[in-house]
Formats: sequence, C-alpha cells, structure tokens
Amino acid sequence: MSAIAVKEVKERVIADNDAVAESVRNKLKDKKVFLVNLMASPGAGKTTTLVRTIEALQPEYKVGVMEADVDSKVDAETIQKTGAKVIQLHTGGSCHMDADMTERGLESLGYDDLDVVFLENVGNLVCPAEFDVGAAKKVMILSVPEGHDKPLKYPLMFTVSECLLINKIDTAPVFDFDMDLLKSYVEKLNPDMPIIPVSSLKGDGFEQWISWLKNEIEAWKEND
Amino acid sequence: MSAIAVKEVKERVIADNDAVAESVRNKLKDKKVFLVNLMASPGAGKTTTLVRTIEALQPEYKVGVMEADVDSKVDAETIQKTGAKVIQLHTGGSCHMDADMTERGLESLGYDDLDVVFLENVGNLVCPAEFDVGAAKKVMILSVPEGHDKPLKYPLMFTVSECLLINKIDTAPVFDFDMDLLKSYVEKLNPDMPIIPVSSLKGDGFEQWISWLKNEIEAWKEND
Repeated sequence: MSAIAVKEVKERVIADNDAVAESVRNKLKDKKVFLVNLMASPGAGKTTTLVRTIEALQPEYKVGVMEADVDSKVDAETIQKTGAKVIQLHTGGSCHMDADMTERGLESLGYDDLDVVFLENVGNLVCPAEFDVGAAKKVMILSVPEGHDKPLKYPLMFTVSECLLINKIDTAPVFDFDMDLLKSYVEKLNPDMPIIPVSSLKGDGFEQWISWLKNEIEAWKEND
Repeated sequence: MSAIAVKEVKERVIADNDAVAESVRNKLKDKKVFLVNLMASPGAGKTTTLVRTIEALQPEYKVGVMEADVDSKVDAETIQKTGAKVIQLHTGGSCHMDADMTERGLESLGYDDLDVVFLENVGNLVCPAEFDVGAAKKVMILSVPEGHDKPLKYPLMFTVSECLLINKIDTAPVFDFDMDLLKSYVEKLNPDMPIIPVSSLKGDGFEQWISWLKNEIEAWKEND
C-alpha cells in the first residue's frame, strides 16, 4: 500500500471522526454533562490526578469516569474507590480513543445522573491529539520527570490542549526541569493555555486547578 | 468509514511493513550493520541513554544514529556532540517509524562505515510496538517515574522487546516503584528478556547493558 493511499485513508478517518465528535458534543451540551478528555504520556499521573480531582468535586458534582486502555483494568479499580461511576474501555490495540468509541462509552455510562465525565485517554502524546472525542475541554498532563523539552517534540498535543497540568512538581529538585523554558515553548504553540503546576500525590496546586475546572463546568451548564 | 474497513487497511499496512522489514534486516546482515530499534515513552531518557552508550562503544565500534521525531531536531543536536554520525528523520505526524522510513534513513546514513546504528523511535509505548523496522534487536526503556504497572497497560511493547532497561534508577527513593512486581509482570509476557536497571545520567548498570549489547553485536557479525 502506498504512503499516499495510507495518508488519504487517515484523512478520511479523521474527517469522519470530527463529524461524530461534533454530534457527541451537542448531545453532551443538551444533557448538561461536561466531558473532559484527559491526555498524557504513560506514567504522567493521570489516574492519581483523577482520584484527587474527583474527591474535590464530590459531592457538589456527580462524577463519571471512562478508563481507556489498550489492555488491563487496574486504573478502573483504583478510580472505583472514590465512589465515582466508572467504566473500563479497551481500545483493542488502538493508540487513542475516537469519537465513536467515546459515544459508545457514554451510552453505557448513561448521561442522566452525571454532571462531569472524565475520559482517561490512552497514555500517548501523539495519536490522541489528532482525534477529537467530542469533549467540552481537552486537558493535558506533563510530568516533571518527562522534561521541559516535550512541547518541541509533541507540538500538536500542546496546541490542541486547553489546560496544562505540570504534575509531580514535588520531584522538581531531583530533575533538571526548567519551568520558564517550558512556559516559553508552550506560549509559542498555545499562548492562552493556563499552565498549572501540581502534585497530584501531595495536593499542591489543586486549588487553582479545581477552580479552573469548576468555572468551566458552570460555563458549560449555562451555555444554551 | 466503518471500523471493519479501517481494521482491514491497518492489517494490510502491517503485512506490507513486515515484508519490507525482512528485506531491511537481510541487507543489514549482509552489510554486517547491527541496527537497534530503541523504544520508550516520552521523557524516559532515550537520548541520554544513547549518548552514554555511544561513548562506551566508541572507538571500538563506529556508530550511527537515526533520530525519529514527529517534529524538532533537539535530540539530533545532542547526539552530534558524541561524534557519532547522526541524521534526523521527521515522521510527518506519524506516531511510529515503519520499515520503509527506516530503509530510507539507512540509505541516507550509508552502510559502509558503520558497525552499529541506533534508531531512536518516536516516544510512544503503543504504535512502535506494532511496526517491525528491520532491526537486529528491539530495546525498550522504562523509566522509574512511569511506574511499575506499565507492562499491564502496554503489554505488546513488553512482549516484542528483547532487552528492557529500567532507567532513572537513581530516583527510585522518590517514587513508589516496586522492581519485584515489575519483574513479575514482565516475566508473564516475556520470560527470557533481560531486565537491566540503569541510570543513564550517572552510569549505574552500564557495564551489564554494554556487555549485553557487545555480545549481540558480535553474534550478528558472525552470523552468516
């Protein structure tokens, strides 16, 4: 199969996906459910961040979680302990969630008793950036041990995201992580994106993150 | 486009790729060039590992490097300082290297004055695992901050790899990383794979890693 044919198939897949994503987003608006597409590298701390975030949102908000993994269900088991409604999605080898898989996940989770749903995407900085799943907001986590040069290497992810959490900030003394340099790289790609340093393990920075999140949830609910 | 049609296209792409990979591997055998496909998450320390590895192999072996990135050339610039022959490959948005891109990279690097070539694949634990690039050996790096549960979530990568470096071992006291648990997960997927804890920053474990690598290089050269 030629490279051009593969490229054409990919473009068609992405165009089809965008159409489904738009219909997912409209349905979520209608149901007043705020969907977050949470993206990061493997091991950046998506699940730990989710657990602390859910604890901060409950009981004011009813929270659901869709755990997307190539395989396994360890994250779903961890999330279950928060009392949030959780389902596990297996992508069947795929490196990202698409809008169609997200829609089926939402149908199975149910819309009626939920205010906020988090989709924990597959750990990957490349493919998930290309696929709109119909979320209200795309949130990205970069962890300190990964290094401050990641916006240079995975620019699309930093361009499409709408809030950037810098996790494991408590380990900064151990790593050669330059926050100012990171900010300057991100600014060139996405000048208005908030950048919030957090430690999901210890809770640092969560006041700012939860405040950003609540504002966005309320704005989504009011939007007619 | 239906999910079944997409799956069929993907299967055809992978079958085509496997055929090209086999011809790349035969040519490398013929030329007595040992190609390593180095795979890891973003920020696991691929480039730092490469720099120290190249320094340990030179001048006994002549080393070439192909730096694959979605974008940017920061890693190629870092590698250049070792004196190894480096080329930068851009995947044009793709989440992995395939055999065809690898072959073109090798043609541009040239086979004649090299004993060992490292392909630094795109930082990703999903897609690179599916694409044989024609390497003599697949080496994976997992870094301590990513966590010991990664074999449960990215099983294919741990199954296809032939040597596993556990990097940033010097940061183990900061993270909740259980080496015995990691080993037990890996053993279920790939019982014979050597697991070598290293610190690419400080040099711990490099004696064992370089010894494994030199044995494999010599075996490749002797193989007719």
